[in-house]
Amino acid sequence: MRFHSRKWVKPGDLNANETLFGGRVLAWIDEEAALYSIIQLENKKVVTKYMSEINFMSSAVKGDIVEIGIEVLKFGKSSLTLNCEVRNKMTHETIVTVDNIIMVNLDDNGKPKPHGKTKIEYVVDRLATEDD
Amino acid sequence: MRFHSRKWVKPGDLNANETLFGGRVLAWIDEEAALYSIIQLENKKVVTKYMSEINFMSSAVKGDIVEIGIEVLKFGKSSLTLNCEVRNKMTHETIVTVDNIIMVNLDDNGKPKPHGKTKIEYVVDRLATEDD
Amino acid sequence: MRFHSRKWVKPGDLNANETLFGGRVLAWIDEEAALYSIIQLENKKVVTKYMSEINFMSSAVKGDIVEIGIEVLKFGKSSLTLNCEVRNKMTHETIVTVDNIIMVNLDDNGKPKPHGKTKIEYVVDRLATEDD
Amino acid sequence: MRFHSRKWVKPGDLNANETLFGGRVLAWIDEEAALYSIIQLENKKVVTKYMSEINFMSSAVKGDIVEIGIEVLKFGKSSLTLNCEVRNKMTHETIVTVDNIIMVNLDDNGKPKPHGKTKIEYVVDRLATEDD
Amino acid sequence: MRFHSRKWVKPGDLNANETLFGGRVLAWIDEEAALYSIIQLENKKVVTKYMSEINFMSSAVKGDIVEIGIEVLKFGKSSLTLNCEVRNKMTHETIVTVDNIIMVNLDDNGKPKPHGKTKIEYVVDRLATEDD
Amino acid sequence: MRFHSRKWVKPGDLNANETLFGGRVLAWIDEEAALYSIIQLENKKVVTKYMSEINFMSSAVKGDIVEIGIEVLKFGKSSLTLNCEVRNKMTHETIVTVDNIIMVNLDDNGKPKPHGKTKIEYVVDRLATEDD
Repeated sequence: MRFHSRKWVKPGDLNANETLFGGRVLAWIDEEAALYSIIQLENKKVVTKYMSEINFMSSAVKGDIVEIGIEVLKFGKSSLTLNCEVRNKMTHETIVTVDNIIMVNLDDNGKPKPHGKTKIEYVVDRLATEDD
Repeated sequence: MRFHSRKWVKPGDLNANETLFGGRVLAWIDEEAALYSIIQLENKKVVTKYMSEINFMSSAVKGDIVEIGIEVLKFGKSSLTLNCEVRNKMTHETIVTVDNIIMVNLDDNGKPKPHGKTKIEYVVDRLATEDD
Repeated sequence: MRFHSRKWVKPGDLNANETLFGGRVLAWIDEEAALYSIIQLENKKVVTKYMSEINFMSSAVKGDIVEIGIEVLKFGKSSLTLNCEVRNKMTHETIVTVDNIIMVNLDDNGKPKPHGKTKIEYVVDRLATEDD
Repeated sequence: MRFHSRKWVKPGDLNANETLFGGRVLAWIDEEAALYSIIQLENKKVVTKYMSEINFMSSAVKGDIVEIGIEVLKFGKSSLTLNCEVRNKMTHETIVTVDNIIMVNLDDNGKPKPHGKTKIEYVVDRLATEDD
Repeated sequence: MRFHSRKWVKPGDLNANETLFGGRVLAWIDEEAALYSIIQLENKKVVTKYMSEINFMSSAVKGDIVEIGIEVLKFGKSSLTLNCEVRNKMTHETIVTVDNIIMVNLDDNGKPKPHGKTKIEYVVDRLATEDD
Repeated sequence: MRFHSRKWVKPGDLNANETLFGGRVLAWIDEEAALYSIIQLENKKVVTKYMSEINFMSSAVKGDIVEIGIEVLKFGKSSLTLNCEVRNKMTHETIVTVDNIIMVNLDDNGKPKPHGKTKIEYVVDRLATEDD
């Protein structure tokens, strides 16, 4: 799994117990899943359809650095299934895991649309190809 | 199920496709589950431990009014299991459901603590009793 | 008065004295008044025209749960007059009261438009009726 | 009346009708009243106690620049009464007026405390005096 | 230099060290430069093109009041060069300075457009003139 | 340069011209520089001291994905000098560059403190070492 986006836990991210607000973590996961899918499917219209069970294994406190990892599990016809882990960047302690996040590729009318992708692609390769 | 909190979908709640940002909905659910548990368990130190699978069944757009329903499924020894539905207030169309949300009652050191509750209580009854 | 929406006072809701930021409370009241009016008038284009004097009777601190109550005082021709109370959910102590909030029903050009409503309606009744 | 703080109306400040969210304006007013009072009373512990009726006279749209004016009406023993106007910077059209905002000077225990001020002071004068 | 906009440093503005988040200050500067330029150039389509080096000279803490000063250095053909200082309102201690901020006046297609301005104008004068 | 954090440009990130708000980009850069420094210096008390000139080379619009790259230029005694680029993830078009960002390592009293680091370290190596 590759971890890209990082967040610095600031006062505005805390719940009333002064630990990282769970809802904030879920919002970070959803944004990361969406943008990862947009990159892979080369389509800006991608929505979250399903998340499997979510385990909050540990928390984080003010000043912690958190990183979000995404991994592709399966390319469906018009969907993409991801696996996600959020962990503490400094200790690698797991904060939250979500085994399956299903993202759906939509057309302009908001209907599922085949994306034609079958494997992970890197933007750098796409750009290189376009330069040839 | 009783629906309490309501949200007015404003531009700042939207994703880049101009539909309600899924991460925002998850944050609303998490906040509602937390505050509902705090009310029932009469303890401010309650955290989200687990959410079962999440189905995004429909979305919402700018100007929609969304309401969040919570129902108790089970009082554990130091936990509380909730069921949650987010729906469109005007049409009652379901937006998201989460069958099980497990909240844990903590002591001052952040360890699970028995809460002694076995059934739903209403604040109005508690206050009335105290007045007697 | 019925209290629906609930808020969990988090660090981002506090002023520099670590009590609930008054401006945040006012924003919550305005949103609740707007969405309540949209539900009653069945029109998304409703704006706040007037609020009577606002008394800040007590405050709230981090971790408190606050609930917002709205009551209809009067159905005007193109307006709706509401009464609002914000209180602490656990103690029922009043935080803020606003005796009169006048909301105006607008047409697509932003001009006042008669709404034809004369009494409170419940969405569940409307939906049931539509099913008949 | 002197107008200091200015705001640029951005998408995140709008309500679902794409006009300036009233709750945002109220939050801006409350913040401005608080900081103005802190400056005058030379005490960081100042809270909003009361606002007289609020008239929403016009709105603003995305890209508008809004300015907030504050004027002292009266120095009480432990209070300060302000008058506030929010207007469009470019046209000087009034958006909201609040005739009386009563701010209260608190001691460390949150009790009203005499502030000893009787007239408007400018920070520049205070600093100059300190330099003498 | 004239200081207009003022900010009250609240918990949500802090970084994890409980001092004013630098990114927040930069956002405040950018907004102030944009709105100042919009006022001067009488065009809502103005963008930040360049900022010279930024010196963080001191910080601020919760409850401080910060003010933002802007001064015009030069009117270019389709640009406007500003100088900016952010300081503590109560002590006049400098927090951040930016010597040169270049703003560009755009046409509807996002291309630089001559603005025809050569000196500072005050809105009050413009409005007076229009009344003649 | 390695690009880690990614952002999905949402309506709340836009300025009034519907392009990515410059202040938001600066806040993202500042946060990324801070968390990168915290990781390298293994100290949570790190502040931004200086940013060299900032060039806004292109913008981004709603739905774009933006990534933020950081590179170490120099380890000082109690400082760390970074180089930063923000670009469009899909096209690799540069949005903003900042050649030098100087971060300072502080002790508990907020005074510069030598950090003892001379080269880039990876958390994975640190954790592996600790396991030996």
